[in-house]
Amino acid sequence: MCGIFAYLNYNVHRERRYILEVLFNGLRRLEYRGYDSSGICIDSSDLASVPVDQSIIHSKSFRPLVFRQEGNIEKLVKSVYEEVAATDLNLEELFPIHAGIAHTRWATHGEPAPRNSHPQSSGPGNEFLVIHNGIVTNYEVLKETLVRHGFTFESETDTEVIPKLAKFVFDKANEVGGDESVTFSQVVIEVMRHLEGAYALIFKSRHYPNELIACKRGSPLILGVRELNEQSNSEPLYDPKFLPNNDDPKELFFSSDANAVVEHTKKVLVIEDGEVVHIKDGGVTILRFDHGKDKHSGSLTRPASVQRALSVLDMEVEQINKGNYEHYMQKEIHEQPESLRTTMRGRLIRGGSCKAKSVLLGGLKDHLKTIRRSRRIVFIGCGTSYNAALAVRPILEELSGVPVTMEVASDLLDRQGPIYREDTAVFVSQSGETADTLHALHYARENGALCVGITNTVGSAISRNTHCGVHINAGCEIGVASTKAYTSQIAVMAMLALAIGGDTISNQARREAIIDGLVDLPNKVREVLKLDEEIKDLAKLLMAEQSLLVFGRGYNYATALEGALKVKEVALMHSEGIIAGEMKHGPLALVDENLPIVVIATHDACFRHFGIPDSKQQSVIQQLHARKGRLIVMCSKGEASLVCPGGSCRAIEVPQVEDCLQPVVNIVPLQLLAYHLTVLRGYNVDQPRNLAKSVTTQ
Amino acid sequence: MCGIFAYLNYNVHRERRYILEVLFNGLRRLEYRGYDSSGICIDSSDLASVPVDQSIIHSKSFRPLVFRQEGNIEKLVKSVYEEVAATDLNLEELFPIHAGIAHTRWATHGEPAPRNSHPQSSGPGNEFLVIHNGIVTNYEVLKETLVRHGFTFESETDTEVIPKLAKFVFDKANEVGGDESVTFSQVVIEVMRHLEGAYALIFKSRHYPNELIACKRGSPLILGVRELNEQSNSEPLYDPKFLPNNDDPKELFFSSDANAVVEHTKKVLVIEDGEVVHIKDGGVTILRFDHGKDKHSGSLTRPASVQRALSVLDMEVEQINKGNYEHYMQKEIHEQPESLRTTMRGRLIRGGSCKAKSVLLGGLKDHLKTIRRSRRIVFIGCGTSYNAALAVRPILEELSGVPVTMEVASDLLDRQGPIYREDTAVFVSQSGETADTLHALHYARENGALCVGITNTVGSAISRNTHCGVHINAGCEIGVASTKAYTSQIAVMAMLALAIGGDTISNQARREAIIDGLVDLPNKVREVLKLDEEIKDLAKLLMAEQSLLVFGRGYNYATALEGALKVKEVALMHSEGIIAGEMKHGPLALVDENLPIVVIATHDACFRHFGIPDSKQQSVIQQLHARKGRLIVMCSKGEASLVCPGGSCRAIEVPQVEDCLQPVVNIVPLQLLAYHLTVLRGYNVDQPRNLAKSVTTQ
Repeated sequence: MCGIFAYLNYNVHRERRYILEVLFNGLRRLEYRGYDSSGICIDSSDLASVPVDQSIIHSKSFRPLVFRQEGNIEKLVKSVYEEVAATDLNLEELFPIHAGIAHTRWATHGEPAPRNSHPQSSGPGNEFLVIHNGIVTNYEVLKETLVRHGFTFESETDTEVIPKLAKFVFDKANEVGGDESVTFSQVVIEVMRHLEGAYALIFKSRHYPNELIACKRGSPLILGVRELNEQSNSEPLYDPKFLPNNDDPKELFFSSDANAVVEHTKKVLVIEDGEVVHIKDGGVTILRFDHGKDKHSGSLTRPASVQRALSVLDMEVEQINKGNYEHYMQKEIHEQPESLRTTMRGRLIRGGSCKAKSVLLGGLKDHLKTIRRSRRIVFIGCGTSYNAALAVRPILEELSGVPVTMEVASDLLDRQGPIYREDTAVFVSQSGETADTLHALHYARENGALCVGITNTVGSAISRNTHCGVHINAGCEIGVASTKAYTSQIAVMAMLALAIGGDTISNQARREAIIDGLVDLPNKVREVLKLDEEIKDLAKLLMAEQSLLVFGRGYNYATALEGALKVKEVALMHSEGIIAGEMKHGPLALVDENLPIVVIATHDACFRHFGIPDSKQQSVIQQLHARKGRLIVMCSKGEASLVCPGGSCRAIEVPQVEDCLQPVVNIVPLQLLAYHLTVLRGYNVDQPRNLAKSVTTQ
Repeated sequence: MCGIFAYLNYNVHRERRYILEVLFNGLRRLEYRGYDSSGICIDSSDLASVPVDQSIIHSKSFRPLVFRQEGNIEKLVKSVYEEVAATDLNLEELFPIHAGIAHTRWATHGEPAPRNSHPQSSGPGNEFLVIHNGIVTNYEVLKETLVRHGFTFESETDTEVIPKLAKFVFDKANEVGGDESVTFSQVVIEVMRHLEGAYALIFKSRHYPNELIACKRGSPLILGVRELNEQSNSEPLYDPKFLPNNDDPKELFFSSDANAVVEHTKKVLVIEDGEVVHIKDGGVTILRFDHGKDKHSGSLTRPASVQRALSVLDMEVEQINKGNYEHYMQKEIHEQPESLRTTMRGRLIRGGSCKAKSVLLGGLKDHLKTIRRSRRIVFIGCGTSYNAALAVRPILEELSGVPVTMEVASDLLDRQGPIYREDTAVFVSQSGETADTLHALHYARENGALCVGITNTVGSAISRNTHCGVHINAGCEIGVASTKAYTSQIAVMAMLALAIGGDTISNQARREAIIDGLVDLPNKVREVLKLDEEIKDLAKLLMAEQSLLVFGRGYNYATALEGALKVKEVALMHSEGIIAGEMKHGPLALVDENLPIVVIATHDACFRHFGIPDSKQQSVIQQLHARKGRLIVMCSKGEASLVCPGGSCRAIEVPQVEDCLQPVVNIVPLQLLAYHLTVLRGYNVDQPRNLAKSVTTQ
């Protein structure tokens, strides 16, 4: 949540219009991280044409221009161009060097409004400007102190203390230091020393024109580097891994994630907690700040710089475009046959007739023995990732025999629940940056558990901080409502179950059936996607409803929760997923002729029609029928007449797969339902109200 | 669910009107178990005045009269008297001996309608009549066979196969046997041999006038005995524990639970699975039927009778009356200070200043060591009982250090989740008869776990089948929506946590604070009940809403679930309890100016106002404020201004208690809210739509 982006061009001339568009476009790519309000800062012209010079620090002619607006990015774009037109700012003016920053916000403190948008400022004159992703937990104490020193606050944000503190530190240092001027990074490090909480920050200052400083703790941040001398298709002349430190023309980017960078460059540096990245005079310096150390040193210090290598993004620009689809969510739903194939590529081994089928998860193989000996396997996640783990729980228990405990990350932390050295804790997060899950990871590590990560983001905090793990390789997911990541998470964790389970003779047939099922899964998902039009018709019937219940059980308890979550978060309809076995213990009271109810009753041990004629899930359907419930029953192909005798309800027939993989197939019609409901109800599919991708605050 | 009741008077003259009223009253006491439809069967007059005689079996003059009606008991009463008036049936007619049966239904198979109500019949002439609580899972197979033999079915129930099968068995035996007549119990045992599923059954037959047979498997059933020679206040002349077997005047009752019996007698027998109870000629015979044995014997057998002793009900008639309250639910909410006191009586030990405070749970003390050494403690329950266990989970984890796993009973069974010899499984059920929980108990026993029961019903299936346990002693709970049982369950399980935790020095202060908190809890609950009027005002504001969200975390995650469940089940409003930490992962999308949201933010580690100014739950409130959410915040006394700065939302101030006991206090305003919403919305408080107490079917 909250997207931060910065663009610095060095020794390459760019028009003001171009710079604005790069910033806007960066925000568009990050908009899914928050879209309550947004803002940018560029330089005014009176300074920009003057060559870089230390003496300019105290010049009063330098003016950073700040634009902030409530609402989405396009509202900001429109208002900026209107304001520019009103003030006669020259859009064609060329800048040989320029540092711009931009922010899109997901409100935590203070309602969405221009005054609460970022950049937040040190005060009149914009001496220090800050964009922030995270929460400063001690802002009230800091605010009190700053108010006592004469600062006036304009916003309700926690962020505003940061630029004001920077000005306070800068002014004090200059008072004391006299001639000896303080550097930008010294100011920032002194500020960091006082901040508690989580943050990724970018600082811009009129005292340090054309410089930018970024630092982070908790929230994600990457640096992108584009050298303009490089030939795009030929071998680079120097080792591309080094950070630049020369006068060659270049463009530098800071961004909350790779989506806003990949169209400019694939050379990136994932900034780590405690690093301070300083861009100045065509060079990038990285300093390490240790929160605990020198806390009360009193004077401003400058830590030594550290060496870091660039890495290359494994991502294509097409991934972040919508292609022929109208929305990212729609694209990502329909892309699931491919994303599942990528997820499983190289991991399923089906040898010749004499060789057993098996699973290869490279990142795990050294830890499998330890995992098998665990007292418990604890799945930890939030939202959709939690649901994916829940879907895999039964098969993991079946194959491993180890009890699996489910933990909502925030609840584990709230309770400070017991986690022991004998436990294996599995952390599931698409972004790998989810704050609650990340905190739970730190907690579990402290308690000595073996920590396994399941993420979609190489280099993310969770993949770096776990002992081992598996990447789901689902490709970049932009829709705030997770779809393809969910199905790929299930596929990966089903493979995890196979890997942990080991290949005893007694479960060989079951294992091979699951592996065959996984191999065929993309085809089945392609088949179920053909229900698109049918589901759209269903959505038309349901679009005016206020409530929806989804009942599932066994393997598809998770499907009920996840289907309801999708409808809730994008279609803004109060839908609730309920375990079918709990129906009689309360929820049945809501059932009448009006409330639509989805019942998931595909084939498995809870629903058998040959042999056991009155299965548990059929009994649920009969009880709902007895109450004249308005049923939509999801069933296995060819069984509509069985679940809806005499056409008494609406049936959705889906292809049958191995029971434990059925959740991958079954969620698709519910994803489509959520999508179509949202479009029909006139809401924003990719940017659901109040939400944001990658919840990086607790 | 489903209540069955029977009344047999022997050698004591009763008017038909009296018999009808006893049956109706029995149904009224059981109505909370199901109230879709009901029915009774009494005898016609042409037979009733004739003395009992074996030769009457083939007489055609005997006519059992069946009355069945959709809707609640009062609708049945009205229709019976109307029909009686229309047919000139003499209400004053005296019966020296008479067997009547009655049933109130909670529909599982077939919508509520007279044809689906019980008694179900063998066909025209009502040769065999059956009332049933449970589900016959193989009824479709049986039905097919019976149809092939020429039977015509009139209902959609599973039950109808039972009387028809009885007739089939009876006819066949008489064909084969010729002169040698088959006994009633032989017929019933042969029928039982073919039934799969769960049931409590009472059979009445025109072939066996003035006899009744009851049998059970899974569903609960008790026999009540009232000897009319006995002086109520003097010593009985014979050992009252024996089952009667003489011509003394007496009244005999069968009932699903003690509520319908206690006003007649306190001498009862809790019938066990596999027992067949035959009342005939003033005597009660108990036979043991073994489902597995003699399955394919071919001929009709008669197992030997077994000896059983009567026990005495520990229950007063006042417990099942409403007193000065309008509804049972209201009475039970307001009774909580007393029910909590009873729950804790004799179990908390606070010695002199030198003696440590401690807890004494007699039923557990021999097992505490084993429990402390468990790999896991697994809490298993459904609905409200599950929520009570969830509320206690954090403190049990804290005091015992043993990981606590939560299992919804039906989900554990659906998954066949791992339960091991090293686990302690705790089964929580008010009635002690909840089918899912009971099945889970059998499952856990098979897997070797130590099984602990927490119930409100002495002699219930769960208290009989667990290795050890604690009764909550909350007194009889009649309102379908559980209230006082919930708070007593929490109190008992908090004591359980203290007992398991043991008294180390390091946690002594914490333990004593909890014990002091428990002692004072009834007073705090009395205090919070004073909010009644304030909550009624709030209910007026909310009565027209369609949806309600309840956010809680930590100790009060359970409060959010339970509060929402109460509103859902009685007020028929779509309310959902959500863990506050998950808000950002989806549910926040629903938040706008209209949707009412209850946030539980009483004092604990998730909400501290001194020291840590920006706690997690305050951050949730701020984020909801930022989205202009319509908040109702439950906070600790004196903190309204803290959670609702500037009166920005509605606050409910509750007394503060030790954090782990706060759920007991916090649920009360939500119980009151659910109650007042229901009354204001015009729904039935004690008999919520579609629900029933004691869910004895899966």
